[in-house]
Amino acid sequence: MKNANPPLLENLIERLARLPGLGRKSATRLALHFLRQPEDDVRELAGALTEVKEKIKFCSLCHNFTDEDPCPRCTDTRRDRSIICVVETPGDLMALDASGIFNGLYHVLGGALTPLSGIGPDDLKIAELLNRIDQSGTGEDNPPCREILLATGSSPEGETTATYLAERLKERGIIVTRLARGIPIGVDLEYVDGATLRQSLEFRREL
Amino acid sequence: MKNANPPLLENLIERLARLPGLGRKSATRLALHFLRQPEDDVRELAGALTEVKEKIKFCSLCHNFTDEDPCPRCTDTRRDRSIICVVETPGDLMALDASGIFNGLYHVLGGALTPLSGIGPDDLKIAELLNRIDQSGTGEDNPPCREILLATGSSPEGETTATYLAERLKERGIIVTRLARGIPIGVDLEYVDGATLRQSLEFRREL
Repeated sequence: MKNANPPLLENLIERLARLPGLGRKSATRLALHFLRQPEDDVRELAGALTEVKEKIKFCSLCHNFTDEDPCPRCTDTRRDRSIICVVETPGDLMALDASGIFNGLYHVLGGALTPLSGIGPDDLKIAELLNRIDQSGTGEDNPPCREILLATGSSPEGETTATYLAERLKERGIIVTRLARGIPIGVDLEYVDGATLRQSLEFRREL
Repeated sequence: MKNANPPLLENLIERLARLPGLGRKSATRLALHFLRQPEDDVRELAGALTEVKEKIKFCSLCHNFTDEDPCPRCTDTRRDRSIICVVETPGDLMALDASGIFNGLYHVLGGALTPLSGIGPDDLKIAELLNRIDQSGTGEDNPPCREILLATGSSPEGETTATYLAERLKERGIIVTRLARGIPIGVDLEYVDGATLRQSLEFRREL
């Protein structure tokens, strides 16, 4: 009489419990919720999941998730193409972009330098960033990149990454700025409110 | 430049944000998690979701979710068929069964009497419970039901339901018991720990 739940239901609960932020109890609640929902709703959620995996790729310029390459942000002519904001993850980019305070281009590194875990410059999209800068300024639609805004995290890894990038970028005679210390230490960029993000942009300083 | 996220990704985030216990931020985190996961893992989760909806139905005896009718609990000959535990929801049943302290049969009402919301006896599986009791005792594999253990919630609705059922059941000369007041008032049965559940079973009293 151990566990007489239908194996299909157990399978779903186990898969849900593996998701970040969910434990066994919340996974069970979710699974029972799905059983109560109209079949079409659940089918559409399942479809949305597989469709996202099939069709969402990385943009070859900014390395954010996109369904077309280059992505709509990179091809948006209303954006200021002379400044590139460098972030660690797509989540950071989404948080910053949702605040509506930055109208330049983005570059997603795919993480931060973490020597202890063996994550070095070659594991991040740093060569791609330098190449992007070198390729800028070659046409009317492609003005030179004048400023790099470093928006890596305020964690030690984010700071290390910013310091490393600042050195590599200043060799190229480019203005390098850093989001101001408005961001609470140790908090993911994703969780910072818009007002704090705005302040941190206003107080950015040249390195 | 409002929202340049791929529409497919937005669609997934919106659907996830509608789930109980998830807001826009946790839905975004989950969606980005799925984008990082191997495609097979996500496809299997999506498959588990649709399969559960296609194949899980209600047991015609206990009215719990099942993939075969009658369900494995109802046909399990190792269970004590002379006692039926009445719960409000499948989640309650799963919580009680996971504690391993009850080895009888179950009956899921599908809710509690809530006159203010217009949920009356006909909206719950009460006639089905009475019928199950009347049909018991007709053969060797089907001993008479001697006791009904009322495990509806400790909320006013759960108490009302228990009182109503006790009256209806005692007319039939059956023993009616209620889980003891070991369960904290106002807390869902799903969230009660096994030790408290065990105590509440030990202290059940006849009504």
